[in-house]
Amino acid sequence: MDSVPKSAASVKKILCEAPMESVVQVSGTVISRPPGQENPKMPTGEIEIKVKSAQLLNTCKKLPFEIKDFVKKTEALRLQYRYLDLRSFQMQYNLRLRSRMVMKMREYLCNLHGFVDIETPTLFKRTPGGAKEFVIPSREPGKFYCLPQSPQQFKQLLMVGGLDRYFQVARCYRDEGSRPDRQPEFTQIDIEMSFVDQIGIRSLIEGLLQYSWPSDKDPVVVPFPSMTFAEALASYGTDKPDTRFGMKIVDISDVFRNTKVGFLQDALSKPQGTVKAICISEGAKYLKRKDIESLRKLAADHFNQEVLPVFPKANRNWNSPVAKSIMEEQRSELIRLMEIQEDGVVLLTAGEHRKACSVLGKLRLECADLLEARGLVLRDPALFSFLWVVDFPLFLPKEENPGELESAHHPFTAPHPSDIHLLHTEPKQVRSQHYDLVLNGNEIGGGSIRIHDAELQRYILATLLKEDVKLLSHLLQALDFGAPPHGGIALGLDRLICLVTGAPSIRDVIAFPKSFRGHDLMSNAPDSLPPEELKPYHIQVSWPADSEAEKSSLNQPYHPES
Amino acid sequence: MDSVPKSAASVKKILCEAPMESVVQVSGTVISRPPGQENPKMPTGEIEIKVKSAQLLNTCKKLPFEIKDFVKKTEALRLQYRYLDLRSFQMQYNLRLRSRMVMKMREYLCNLHGFVDIETPTLFKRTPGGAKEFVIPSREPGKFYCLPQSPQQFKQLLMVGGLDRYFQVARCYRDEGSRPDRQPEFTQIDIEMSFVDQIGIRSLIEGLLQYSWPSDKDPVVVPFPSMTFAEALASYGTDKPDTRFGMKIVDISDVFRNTKVGFLQDALSKPQGTVKAICISEGAKYLKRKDIESLRKLAADHFNQEVLPVFPKANRNWNSPVAKSIMEEQRSELIRLMEIQEDGVVLLTAGEHRKACSVLGKLRLECADLLEARGLVLRDPALFSFLWVVDFPLFLPKEENPGELESAHHPFTAPHPSDIHLLHTEPKQVRSQHYDLVLNGNEIGGGSIRIHDAELQRYILATLLKEDVKLLSHLLQALDFGAPPHGGIALGLDRLICLVTGAPSIRDVIAFPKSFRGHDLMSNAPDSLPPEELKPYHIQVSWPADSEAEKSSLNQPYHPES
Repeated sequence: MDSVPKSAASVKKILCEAPMESVVQVSGTVISRPPGQENPKMPTGEIEIKVKSAQLLNTCKKLPFEIKDFVKKTEALRLQYRYLDLRSFQMQYNLRLRSRMVMKMREYLCNLHGFVDIETPTLFKRTPGGAKEFVIPSREPGKFYCLPQSPQQFKQLLMVGGLDRYFQVARCYRDEGSRPDRQPEFTQIDIEMSFVDQIGIRSLIEGLLQYSWPSDKDPVVVPFPSMTFAEALASYGTDKPDTRFGMKIVDISDVFRNTKVGFLQDALSKPQGTVKAICISEGAKYLKRKDIESLRKLAADHFNQEVLPVFPKANRNWNSPVAKSIMEEQRSELIRLMEIQEDGVVLLTAGEHRKACSVLGKLRLECADLLEARGLVLRDPALFSFLWVVDFPLFLPKEENPGELESAHHPFTAPHPSDIHLLHTEPKQVRSQHYDLVLNGNEIGGGSIRIHDAELQRYILATLLKEDVKLLSHLLQALDFGAPPHGGIALGLDRLICLVTGAPSIRDVIAFPKSFRGHDLMSNAPDSLPPEELKPYHIQVSWPADSEAEKSSLNQPYHPES
Repeated sequence: MDSVPKSAASVKKILCEAPMESVVQVSGTVISRPPGQENPKMPTGEIEIKVKSAQLLNTCKKLPFEIKDFVKKTEALRLQYRYLDLRSFQMQYNLRLRSRMVMKMREYLCNLHGFVDIETPTLFKRTPGGAKEFVIPSREPGKFYCLPQSPQQFKQLLMVGGLDRYFQVARCYRDEGSRPDRQPEFTQIDIEMSFVDQIGIRSLIEGLLQYSWPSDKDPVVVPFPSMTFAEALASYGTDKPDTRFGMKIVDISDVFRNTKVGFLQDALSKPQGTVKAICISEGAKYLKRKDIESLRKLAADHFNQEVLPVFPKANRNWNSPVAKSIMEEQRSELIRLMEIQEDGVVLLTAGEHRKACSVLGKLRLECADLLEARGLVLRDPALFSFLWVVDFPLFLPKEENPGELESAHHPFTAPHPSDIHLLHTEPKQVRSQHYDLVLNGNEIGGGSIRIHDAELQRYILATLLKEDVKLLSHLLQALDFGAPPHGGIALGLDRLICLVTGAPSIRDVIAFPKSFRGHDLMSNAPDSLPPEELKPYHIQVSWPADSEAEKSSLNQPYHPES
């Protein structure tokens, strides 16, 4: 290290010759900036230091990219040199805001509402159907821990254990392979309470978000509106509606009940057959013919569903033969029913209720993208539109075998009190006491009132879901020993902070995220291990037949992902 | 669920017939307790409820043990029914105190000292020499993540990244197999700062503990005393002295320098040869002959070291031939030097400095146990005696090959500024800037000022430690890009809370701990997995040759550990 220089010239030399991003120590006198040179945007913008001595503490070598150049770098480069990327204004803002917001949440829960912060294990046991859980070999041959997807079982056991207000900022794990904007480890604000109902949890969370909301954003208005799952599907075609803008789905079956148009009649005659539409305000002004065609193609390709553009008031029809088949009186009825203004475009589809809603829900978001690309603002980034979605079905038909049931959320969710009588007769009709919290079209949390009755839990697990109850015997047994009624929720912290900061990806609110392939591009994890390090765990690698080439390249130098 | 009854008789019936630990809901009027029936020890001791209606919300089946009967249960039973054990007064107290204390720490760090709470990954890469790290197979054949033993690399990278005050309540992992009072996952208060020196970190931590200390304990007095490693070894025979009581080791080599006693002369003539002793006050009164013999046996069995009891003032000698060989003048000199009172017993040993200190350090604690078993109080459980131990050696000779060096703590520890010149000539003589925090004889934290100079770090890793620097290339590279001087510390939270609450084991301050064999006795983790669940991870179990019997018993019912 250089010694402290004395002369003004040598000070100047040190400071001028130090490469960008080097670390220097200066001593001197704090003085006001000369008039006109103040910078009110900087916290230190009113002062400067009259330097007496300077010392170069650490030199910075040539940087792989400029720190300020946040947007222009590839993400792979940013992740490889994460420690440099962290110096950017954006990453500093995101991580510091995250820390402050979590701290406020803790104050709210711990100090204001008597919650107890309890850590639960991450070395746990496979949960039934936990196909996405990482496995960890132990030193006992053939025995494995698993990294849990959430502390669900533990939080319920804490309620049985009399820790009646639990919370934890919990690390969770999910092995989903490569999925964009997902992380193999993520964090949730995990909450559970005894003697609480749905409204109790909801107002707790509303207060929590209001209390912890950053002061530089518009304040959170409570209570949040709520909507049933059925209504969300019918009006927005999704269980996580972005309620910042309209363009709601309208059921126009009645308009076409007596039409002669064959494909509409076909659709309406089938079970749950409907005709649905969304109206794109100013669509005729901002959307081009190719936009409409790409929307129709999307519906055809991804939903196998025909979508029909109608221009009820605009003097345009693009000679679409299907559109022509809509009669003038139906057009007028549409205008009345959907409150269509000048230049409004209607996208119409016919088919089974859920499918028709889904396709229009997707097109609604696509239209918003298209209109915003043309300069309209539908989804104000400064607006935070919270929504509770409630009354989900308790069960869904299994995808691989629709004759059987699976839990819509998880098997500990309590049935809706009004529907309990249907459990034995029409379980598919039973609504649950599950609730999702949606923010600007993203699910940021979910929870439920749980089953606290051991018999009911056994009936649902064994009889309705046909699960192996042995794996959950400890939980079932716990319910037998005076479990209080309880419920809870988990908020996805990474997603929430991402929405609050307006970051383009959750990777921008995590200090050291994995790439979308699950790699740490800085340290090159996961990495190969010599076989002797696997020996204590009694495992060996089963090399796929075609991976000999791959195997021999394991010790090759590292190539970043693109 | 029962419907709400109306008559007083039916209310009484419900409440009287509900088994212990059942959950009931009562409605009624809060009234004062009749005079004389108040219980000031209960928060609700002044009131009672005049019940109008009652409802049994959940019945409790016959309990495997009484909740109040905390001490009499075996720990295996407590861990198997952890959710019941959590209802005990002790577990509620421990977990709630832990939550409050951590919350106060967060307030101190986040709100008062500008620290940023940053989460670091737990799916990471093997660190060099990280033989105790759990491995996690990924979906890429032969590639593994590891669970880190601490966020050491990440916290240093955060300093390089300009997050100059980092903290995290960090989950850490260490696979040590079966070790009493260790947990495979544990929690540390992890802290790192830029532009800080040893004193800066130490006063931060002193303030942190003072601020977060429970109000029902004696307040923490700061600053904490500090002691060099050399002094701790010489006076207490350990690097974590329990400074609640004296009985310090005294070097009495000079007393025996000119003696004729052969074995003392032998010892003194060897390199670093010494004669050392501790004085057990009132030992002659409280210790029995068999106690002294068991202490001597311990020294012989575990340290291969002869220990000699001397009774300088008591009129007793038990005819020990070695003791007789100590002359009267040496005895008087001992009394003067060690300030021996009536009934004091001296335990004397001769040998190499470090070994002599170690054996007497161990005997010092054994004596304290023995005296306390006889009713003396040496270590007041209400007393919290903090101590900094500093100036550790930077390197130690490798156990398996004493010609080579290994880091006494970890390879990122900075050398003591006064000793840097010795790095190239006498590295074994270099002291480090490591510091340990000791509480009542337990190491509860440790940290250091780190190396921020890439060249120095490379020299230590490659030349002195002969490590493969490739595995740490990202960290070395980071130091090249303007890393600030930095340092930090980690406090072992489980151990700290254990000492604060006076719990007999860290398992009593963790909601769901593993048994000493690393098992979750409630859910039976780790558990066997069907081979198809290992397939996505490209691993298979290598069954030990003699474990076929074990393998076939994998699906047998569970037997709790004893």
